[in-house]
Amino acid sequence: MGSSFGTLFRISTWGESHGGGVGVVIDGCPPRIPLSAADIQVDLDRRKPGQSEIVTPRKELDECEILSGTFDGLTLGTPIAILVRNKDARPESYSEMREKYRPSHADYTYQAKYGIRNWQGGGRASARETIGRVAAAVVAKKIIAQFAPDLEIIAYVKTIKDLIAEVNPMTVQFETVEGNIVRTGDPKAVDPMVDLIKEMRSEGNSVGGTVECVVRGCPPGLGEPVFDKLEADLAKAMMSLPATKGFEIGSGFAGTQLTGKEHNDPFYMEGDRVRTETNLSGGIQGGISNGEAIVFRTAFKPTATIMTSQKTVSQSGEDTELSARGRHDPCVLPRAVPMVEAMTALVLCDHFLRQHTLSVSPETSNSEDVR
Amino acid sequence: MGSSFGTLFRISTWGESHGGGVGVVIDGCPPRIPLSAADIQVDLDRRKPGQSEIVTPRKELDECEILSGTFDGLTLGTPIAILVRNKDARPESYSEMREKYRPSHADYTYQAKYGIRNWQGGGRASARETIGRVAAAVVAKKIIAQFAPDLEIIAYVKTIKDLIAEVNPMTVQFETVEGNIVRTGDPKAVDPMVDLIKEMRSEGNSVGGTVECVVRGCPPGLGEPVFDKLEADLAKAMMSLPATKGFEIGSGFAGTQLTGKEHNDPFYMEGDRVRTETNLSGGIQGGISNGEAIVFRTAFKPTATIMTSQKTVSQSGEDTELSARGRHDPCVLPRAVPMVEAMTALVLCDHFLRQHTLSVSPETSNSEDVR
Amino acid sequence: MGSSFGTLFRISTWGESHGGGVGVVIDGCPPRIPLSAADIQVDLDRRKPGQSEIVTPRKELDECEILSGTFDGLTLGTPIAILVRNKDARPESYSEMREKYRPSHADYTYQAKYGIRNWQGGGRASARETIGRVAAAVVAKKIIAQFAPDLEIIAYVKTIKDLIAEVNPMTVQFETVEGNIVRTGDPKAVDPMVDLIKEMRSEGNSVGGTVECVVRGCPPGLGEPVFDKLEADLAKAMMSLPATKGFEIGSGFAGTQLTGKEHNDPFYMEGDRVRTETNLSGGIQGGISNGEAIVFRTAFKPTATIMTSQKTVSQSGEDTELSARGRHDPCVLPRAVPMVEAMTALVLCDHFLRQHTLSVSPETSNSEDVR
Amino acid sequence: MGSSFGTLFRISTWGESHGGGVGVVIDGCPPRIPLSAADIQVDLDRRKPGQSEIVTPRKELDECEILSGTFDGLTLGTPIAILVRNKDARPESYSEMREKYRPSHADYTYQAKYGIRNWQGGGRASARETIGRVAAAVVAKKIIAQFAPDLEIIAYVKTIKDLIAEVNPMTVQFETVEGNIVRTGDPKAVDPMVDLIKEMRSEGNSVGGTVECVVRGCPPGLGEPVFDKLEADLAKAMMSLPATKGFEIGSGFAGTQLTGKEHNDPFYMEGDRVRTETNLSGGIQGGISNGEAIVFRTAFKPTATIMTSQKTVSQSGEDTELSARGRHDPCVLPRAVPMVEAMTALVLCDHFLRQHTLSVSPETSNSEDVR
Repeated sequence: MGSSFGTLFRISTWGESHGGGVGVVIDGCPPRIPLSAADIQVDLDRRKPGQSEIVTPRKELDECEILSGTFDGLTLGTPIAILVRNKDARPESYSEMREKYRPSHADYTYQAKYGIRNWQGGGRASARETIGRVAAAVVAKKIIAQFAPDLEIIAYVKTIKDLIAEVNPMTVQFETVEGNIVRTGDPKAVDPMVDLIKEMRSEGNSVGGTVECVVRGCPPGLGEPVFDKLEADLAKAMMSLPATKGFEIGSGFAGTQLTGKEHNDPFYMEGDRVRTETNLSGGIQGGISNGEAIVFRTAFKPTATIMTSQKTVSQSGEDTELSARGRHDPCVLPRAVPMVEAMTALVLCDHFLRQHTLSVSPETSNSEDVR
Repeated sequence: MGSSFGTLFRISTWGESHGGGVGVVIDGCPPRIPLSAADIQVDLDRRKPGQSEIVTPRKELDECEILSGTFDGLTLGTPIAILVRNKDARPESYSEMREKYRPSHADYTYQAKYGIRNWQGGGRASARETIGRVAAAVVAKKIIAQFAPDLEIIAYVKTIKDLIAEVNPMTVQFETVEGNIVRTGDPKAVDPMVDLIKEMRSEGNSVGGTVECVVRGCPPGLGEPVFDKLEADLAKAMMSLPATKGFEIGSGFAGTQLTGKEHNDPFYMEGDRVRTETNLSGGIQGGISNGEAIVFRTAFKPTATIMTSQKTVSQSGEDTELSARGRHDPCVLPRAVPMVEAMTALVLCDHFLRQHTLSVSPETSNSEDVR
Repeated sequence: MGSSFGTLFRISTWGESHGGGVGVVIDGCPPRIPLSAADIQVDLDRRKPGQSEIVTPRKELDECEILSGTFDGLTLGTPIAILVRNKDARPESYSEMREKYRPSHADYTYQAKYGIRNWQGGGRASARETIGRVAAAVVAKKIIAQFAPDLEIIAYVKTIKDLIAEVNPMTVQFETVEGNIVRTGDPKAVDPMVDLIKEMRSEGNSVGGTVECVVRGCPPGLGEPVFDKLEADLAKAMMSLPATKGFEIGSGFAGTQLTGKEHNDPFYMEGDRVRTETNLSGGIQGGISNGEAIVFRTAFKPTATIMTSQKTVSQSGEDTELSARGRHDPCVLPRAVPMVEAMTALVLCDHFLRQHTLSVSPETSNSEDVR
Repeated sequence: MGSSFGTLFRISTWGESHGGGVGVVIDGCPPRIPLSAADIQVDLDRRKPGQSEIVTPRKELDECEILSGTFDGLTLGTPIAILVRNKDARPESYSEMREKYRPSHADYTYQAKYGIRNWQGGGRASARETIGRVAAAVVAKKIIAQFAPDLEIIAYVKTIKDLIAEVNPMTVQFETVEGNIVRTGDPKAVDPMVDLIKEMRSEGNSVGGTVECVVRGCPPGLGEPVFDKLEADLAKAMMSLPATKGFEIGSGFAGTQLTGKEHNDPFYMEGDRVRTETNLSGGIQGGISNGEAIVFRTAFKPTATIMTSQKTVSQSGEDTELSARGRHDPCVLPRAVPMVEAMTALVLCDHFLRQHTLSVSPETSNSEDVR
């Protein structure tokens, strides 16, 4: 069950990095939503390898085929199956990994869990698994637009190592982020970040950082009070992405340095809309969106695969060394940006549908904000 | 569905802070596990209000009754229902909240979501909701002990505002933590922390901090590769607790300052056991435990309820001011410690059972590590 | 997980026949639905023991307490916990069952499954478990009324042994059924059925029969195409009731005697409504309601507990004999009628909510039929 | 969510009869189970069209491709995706159905539910959807064999219209059933049944019947006490197959003609094994298997698609007539036999894994019967 996500808008991804392909089945998509493979391809292209000089050169066009669930360009309400074939798999690059565990990778833990693993690549731990998530998120965003046409989800690189982008989450534009290969929201940070990534790669090293994501235009009322708090589901969504080490929302860890008087967000009326003067809550209170911008950050560790000899052990239990080969990102952040947006869309879509199930009461409806 | 947690060991909590009571139903507990109300009471007492001079004085004994699922002191394999009555509810303290939303509380978002709320207290957003979690975790820990008798879950206050406890997660003892009312693992930090909390309360203010949690003795193999990564489920578990703003595991956000060469954990053999020299991974790689200590931190914001006049709005849409009353914790950290442990136990128990379902193959079993 | 039912309107029952009590937690109820304990009591009284001279004399008032999820007489949108205490348990009647398995009861299978059982009564296999279902169904019916105010669910005894009630499912009235202690829809069948049941009891014997259920006024569109077909969920719902041995819908088993030409239901227009001339489909086609009356039948075996010496075995593995004691129904049918209605309501409510989640598309809505 | 089945062994089917193809994703398969496409093909060939002179002549080889989840001929523990392309789709045969609803088909109800349908064939209501079920069941049977190597699942045609096969469920052999194109267990019934089916086809008519299924060698302890009773899950499984109208287990509807004294199955010891003298329970008591043969029957209606002019209505709301075209089975029973076996295997596999999760207790294990 660990390969499914969502309750009402439920996706199930499948596929190893080296095998027949990867894909996703989407169950719970409402009918009559316009959808084509071209729609999906747009976001797959933002995620795919080889898209710029600072990412892995693996040559995968990641062209998708919609196998079911649409007819005449509209969704049918039935499961949507999407397939992307693996094309440029090079298992020979992995022959050494048949016997040796890559440090800080999932080789050892898969072997410990299953007693078997597809050593020809990262298996399900490969970033290729996220293809299905990104594809499904295209559908999710179309559903979200039915509820909140003006809702925007924008992620961007906030930091790489000690380089910090200055970005205002209230005003940052998608075009700015997409206009540079790092996918940061601060034009001045682009060159230093590109230089750092190239330097790391030339040294056979790698680097990490943080992605910040803002959701603007989200109505109040999304999220469930207890376990499925909106921030809890976002935290799980982000921490389910490869290479993540941390999640924080609103004031986050820095908020622990404030007192309650400083931290509380005072309410005020803006016309007939309830607003907060500050937004240390990050747009969510008690697990439920309050109508302010949702702002959160995710930490990505430096890529585990480095082109340097490392101490490790063999599957047969011997101390040894490993020099990684294969084609990898020296920094996952640029390609992580569309993944963060995708997971955000999946969480929001699910919660829009969940909230929609509550809108059945006869009296004054709670569905004013969330259709 | 938002009030249930877990897949195989599944708990469903119910109850408002002011109403008939709160409780939990546990489905999926194996049969013939010894269990009594007294077992559960031990941890409920660690969570209950009024236990020390630095927490809320609300007088609740939080005495539990097991309504079903046990017989002659053993679990039956059927659902275990546990009930704790609300005794010291004082709805009159909340009369002002009938009309006014408390800043950074869930009053407004509940109203926006449901079009109704139990204004006599925090409803489901109250920390009383966690009674069911703590009770269920007692059962979870008994199941974990069947798989890993030596596994230890120890949480402790790591920081309060800018006060930092020096604690070694590999050696900290439960008795040390439980031996002080702050529940920190550093005896030298106790007095400054107590003083700070008392100072905050005397000012009608509040304060937050971080709880660190270590799991020692966890076998490799727990966690699922994709969405239900062990760290993703832990992140969701922690971020579902009231007042949390962030989660990080292993190197966390600070890990983004390192390069791959510095961050990778080299493997080595210790006898026939695979170990890592460092543990920046925090005991989890690729979503699956690797046998090292699992170490993570959760950020708790300063308590929203402060005894100071604050700007807010009324339910009828007027700007106004609110002076909170009621009985509240000036700092949730001391009582958050058993909650963090409880959520950790719930996650681990579920994943032990999930891993157990894989142990059916005929050949060399993967169940050597995880029974 | 086996104690939960439904996907969006999800109920979890708990409790043994001899223990603290029985109850249910309802998750997924929309907010602001009027609800009181008195509403629930009406249907509990139809289910309770001791209600007439042909059912078990166990004295249980089955008075319910709503522990959570309501406020000022309205649902809050949060979990609704309902508790009924066991009052007239007589474990001493069961002392012989501590060692001996009652034939065609669940004593042996529980022991085989769990290695333990609550021998003081039927445990979870007792009809007392259905209290939670009946209570939850009261809430379900209130939600159904939001979608389809004129929808009627009427069940009635169709046969007892070889006695057949002549009932027209299109016209039978609730008052007719509720007006006799057998709960049949045919006034002429009442006396023979009562006589047969009394005769069986006087002989220490028991008898079974069938319950037919009709749903009138159900809009088209309920049910999912593949696994969660409406008739599949109804079948599971009925076969989850104690003592059931069969389920059929529309033409049922007798339909296999017809050819396709005879069996197909021709469509015709009645104004702008699509109708069928016959209804051998039983109101469901392809798993989805078609707007005609839903009609199905459930077979209940003769009560397993009879007041006669029977061959059996002991838990220690010896052939032996057992003379049952305790208080039991010589025929479960009269009390099964509200249970069948309750399970029908739970299935329909869940599918109304599921269908409602599809009503988000911009164009001509599919929500005309199902709001 | 209606396209997924099972809790621990969870399958999700997708695909329309006319589109890219059909398939299934299996989540929850333990690792290191030998599995190849050839294994799966064996059962797909039993289900495929064109296999004999009494089934639809649609030419589909139904060749499957395993896209993920295996490596070197063993399962990986990750999701197994299986794809079968549609090859011989002839949408032109369905042009009339674009406007007209076929009587007793799902055309109208899909349109009512979704406001759209793939009119080029039966969409998800086509029997092609069951390809994924049959494929997944091959995997399920391999897992079952780990728990109960001698367990046999044998289904066979019991009746077609008024023709009755004499079959002893305790002794019938798979080879007997598979040795005739009707798939009945009674050699003497083959010719009359074949003749009847051919006669029906020549008349442009169709016919239905019943399939009986026996599970021999099932250990006691499978099934959950309340909603997920083994017979409830079997009922849902069977009623989710296309064209089913009824389900009964053990004595079934006929059992309502007996009294309790006649119906109860006396226990006796056979060595150290608990047995019953009769098996009117059909191998399940209280929702849990008792170790006796599980025997149940499913009613299939006559095929809705007949080659005769029928009254119907158009999508635009006009009374009209329809003469079906396309290629169809005059009797679904022969091809329903492997579907019934498949669904039985899926239910049993899931419950074996569920029961396995209970086997964690320290004392005398309940896992003696169910490993």
